[in-house]
Amino acid sequence: MLSEFDLIKQYFQRQQAGRAVLGIGDDCALLAPSPGMQLAISCDMLVEGRHFFAGADARMLGHKSLAVNLSDLAAMGATPRAFTLALSLPSADRSWLEGFSAGLFALADAHQCELVGGDTTKGPLNICITIFGEVAPGRALRRDAAKAGDDIWISGTLGDARLALAGYRGEFALDAGSLAAAAPRMHAPTPRVALGMALSGQGAAHAAIDISDGLVGDLGHILAASQVGATLDADALPAGPVLARQQQDLKRRFCAAGGDDYELCFTAPASRREAVIAAAARAGTPVTRVGAIDAEPGLRLVDASGSTLDLSLAGFDHFSGD
Amino acid sequence: MLSEFDLIKQYFQRQQAGRAVLGIGDDCALLAPSPGMQLAISCDMLVEGRHFFAGADARMLGHKSLAVNLSDLAAMGATPRAFTLALSLPSADRSWLEGFSAGLFALADAHQCELVGGDTTKGPLNICITIFGEVAPGRALRRDAAKAGDDIWISGTLGDARLALAGYRGEFALDAGSLAAAAPRMHAPTPRVALGMALSGQGAAHAAIDISDGLVGDLGHILAASQVGATLDADALPAGPVLARQQQDLKRRFCAAGGDDYELCFTAPASRREAVIAAAARAGTPVTRVGAIDAEPGLRLVDASGSTLDLSLAGFDHFSGD
Repeated sequence: MLSEFDLIKQYFQRQQAGRAVLGIGDDCALLAPSPGMQLAISCDMLVEGRHFFAGADARMLGHKSLAVNLSDLAAMGATPRAFTLALSLPSADRSWLEGFSAGLFALADAHQCELVGGDTTKGPLNICITIFGEVAPGRALRRDAAKAGDDIWISGTLGDARLALAGYRGEFALDAGSLAAAAPRMHAPTPRVALGMALSGQGAAHAAIDISDGLVGDLGHILAASQVGATLDADALPAGPVLARQQQDLKRRFCAAGGDDYELCFTAPASRREAVIAAAARAGTPVTRVGAIDAEPGLRLVDASGSTLDLSLAGFDHFSGD
Repeated sequence: MLSEFDLIKQYFQRQQAGRAVLGIGDDCALLAPSPGMQLAISCDMLVEGRHFFAGADARMLGHKSLAVNLSDLAAMGATPRAFTLALSLPSADRSWLEGFSAGLFALADAHQCELVGGDTTKGPLNICITIFGEVAPGRALRRDAAKAGDDIWISGTLGDARLALAGYRGEFALDAGSLAAAAPRMHAPTPRVALGMALSGQGAAHAAIDISDGLVGDLGHILAASQVGATLDADALPAGPVLARQQQDLKRRFCAAGGDDYELCFTAPASRREAVIAAAARAGTPVTRVGAIDAEPGLRLVDASGSTLDLSLAGFDHFSGD
């Protein structure tokens, strides 16, 4: 078995110089913040059997562990800077560590986000990443900044991750081709970092959140923090390409409350539609207008004809049910 | 069972305004770094059965989880600023959460270190804290800064935490009174934050590390990073008050390689002895001079008469043995 120190060196300590003043290998890492910028900090813990299947592919798990954190920075409009990784492992398995670190670093390098420190220990598989980004004062996309009259926008597409989960769980018969096509959305989400940065850089959006627990639940956090309500057009929700081939009811349900999408839901004044579309084009990320923020509290889901739909669709909550 | 969101609100979201621009409750926390300061970042993960006993007192565990991270800041000479907490819990047990959060916040408040974000999930008990401090450029106490001729200093006392562990494990017969007296050193270590800040503020010290895995192993990290050697006087090592009553051999062994001391080991030029003593006095922390840095590689342990002692005392390693 590798010792803890060998393990860190071999798989997580990289040869090239980073931008950090001091990286892995001391009591603390040292970073020099960019003058005048604020620091955005987020932290996610992934537990085997809860956030990923036992035996999940190590490379995709390395990707996903960082992706969910990058997604939080994206939702603030922050520019990724660095992260720490704490890892509890049942054993120092070389092939697992190789795959995990490869997936992790591929995504980290794509976003110039540097691993600056962390911890490894023996124990049940648990992955905890804390990430740091930078954002100019007053530019962060906060949950409490939505205003009545704002458009509600969604990046990319929704529901394919939830569809893949349903396929794995056998909730209904999903053909193997559809499962294979939807699975990458569940295992290897794409954090919308460039879009978040473009929206905050342009001052084009008011509020934003990333959709991890399902649109209805996550938009609900914006509504609560901003003390507003919303009307969503269920038929305008952009279903993922695999989900789009399913029946309407499932499509609506998984778009509205699927979870694990890691798309951005953001609000912007109607007067800024062109700026939003320009920011999305610059980021290379499609966006869809799906509703509006209302002064009246509560969330209303309507169909294309404007009729109200049932909203007994709760957001995913890690402590209720599975 | 409490939902995740209720749980966070009830036990970890505090009423009073913090210094953070934006605290718990958004995708990220926002901090405004102090102009011109560098950011020191550290991360520790504590696993039940490995870093603490199953059923450990929740309040002391809350204290210790933050203490080990504050100790890393102390070892850099950084001023504590904020931290994130990720918590995996088998169940949302109210009395555990009450105790844990009370112990955590009592220590956090004592160091004006603000909880700004985190994550809670269901799973095997695992506590991961990432901490942020600030230090002026060039002032951090780095492991690679020891110079031949430096004195080696130790804060406080060593070995009582290891003595308590030996008592719990039944490694030898330790009377109940001694165990009770030594136990707080194991369960509720005191991070030497004020001393680290005083040493870095005065530029009194070169290198520093906190002693978590045992003096020999941790000093070894300084020697390796600084490419120097050292001679330690085993009989000058400041044994804790309970260990001090044990026989010489055990005293030397637990002082040199006990672990879980969370004292600082630091080096400073002989010309700065008065500055070190002044910094220690200002911090209210006793310090003891225990040896010297040598140009010759390797670590030599000698007794009061200068005779060499056996050094087959390895530092604790989380992946070898227990």
